[in-house]
Amino acid sequence: MAVPPTSHRIDPATGVLSSPTGRYEKRLAELAGIYADADAFAAALAERGDSIVYAVHEVRPAAARGDLIFGTTFMEPGRIGDEFYVTRGHIHARANRPETYYGEAGEGLMLMESPEGETSILEVRPRVMVYVPPLWIHRSVNTGSAPLVMSFCYPADAGQDYGLIARSGGMATRILADGTGWKAVPNADYRPRSAAEIDAILATQD
Amino acid sequence: MAVPPTSHRIDPATGVLSSPTGRYEKRLAELAGIYADADAFAAALAERGDSIVYAVHEVRPAAARGDLIFGTTFMEPGRIGDEFYVTRGHIHARANRPETYYGEAGEGLMLMESPEGETSILEVRPRVMVYVPPLWIHRSVNTGSAPLVMSFCYPADAGQDYGLIARSGGMATRILADGTGWKAVPNADYRPRSAAEIDAILATQD
Repeated sequence: MAVPPTSHRIDPATGVLSSPTGRYEKRLAELAGIYADADAFAAALAERGDSIVYAVHEVRPAAARGDLIFGTTFMEPGRIGDEFYVTRGHIHARANRPETYYGEAGEGLMLMESPEGETSILEVRPRVMVYVPPLWIHRSVNTGSAPLVMSFCYPADAGQDYGLIARSGGMATRILADGTGWKAVPNADYRPRSAAEIDAILATQD
Repeated sequence: MAVPPTSHRIDPATGVLSSPTGRYEKRLAELAGIYADADAFAAALAERGDSIVYAVHEVRPAAARGDLIFGTTFMEPGRIGDEFYVTRGHIHARANRPETYYGEAGEGLMLMESPEGETSILEVRPRVMVYVPPLWIHRSVNTGSAPLVMSFCYPADAGQDYGLIARSGGMATRILADGTGWKAVPNADYRPRSAAEIDAILATQD
């Protein structure tokens, strides 16, 4: 028997997706070590450590191989010092799996990094589809003053790897407030990957 | 080297997707044999045979396996007799590949059929995500009086098979105008698939 079709309404104001198979949220206290300014993070933690930074609604199919996972990401606006709220970020565990992100509400960025350490930054706006190709690390950034809501779609066998970013001391680029806009600055804690690690990622097959 | 990220703006009024890698359109004259009312089709053909029924913008990546194809479908409103305009419809050539369709503008239906011949009909509206699971034949129907625009996403190795529908004399269900709404009626030309053909589709692996 084939799995039955389903439909899901997306609320662009809240990111709520009807009939999800799962939902999770990340609170500020769970994002220790992500931001540059340790003092500002400690202060924010004391003030609003249990506040939500982002929440995900998703629909995961029963079977993995060849299927799709889709859902929404809702990100609160906010900063740690000058640094905008970001998601933890990941590369797919099967590194050659891509992802699409589609702007539903708000203003933000998709911050992406190739295995070699090249940064790519694309603006997310309503009705803008961002394609994160295979092999790119990616993280969302809310650069606006309102929630950033996106819908996403990726192969069901992709998985998430958070270790690659952690081993490099974060992503090569940070996004800071700059007047009413944003600017990209180098991450002082960043340690480029070794040639062997880069080659291993680029060699991902199947 | 990793393929660079890209972003694409969707115009919900026209279905135009910026920076597509491909675009195609289907004109009425290319859809012979799809509709029930042969006389009405002949009359429509004489009157507007070269008019567009639907147009697709798409982004196809270089590599297939594990990647995604995404884009938009724009459908004109219209009818052949009482039958609403539909897309040709397909099952994926790798039949166990799914697809998501997301309403951007207009009102329509996703008309779906399992290998066994079960019909599923889900309404497409702005902000509604329809999940077409693996193994389901699917066709879009514009039941409104304005263009129906959707964005879609599916695995890059899915492919399209149009023969399965043709061999069955179409899909089991047709969508007709009913006052200001729609109704589903049996397709008199439909020939159910054999048990062997059903089994072969359900056995799709990898």
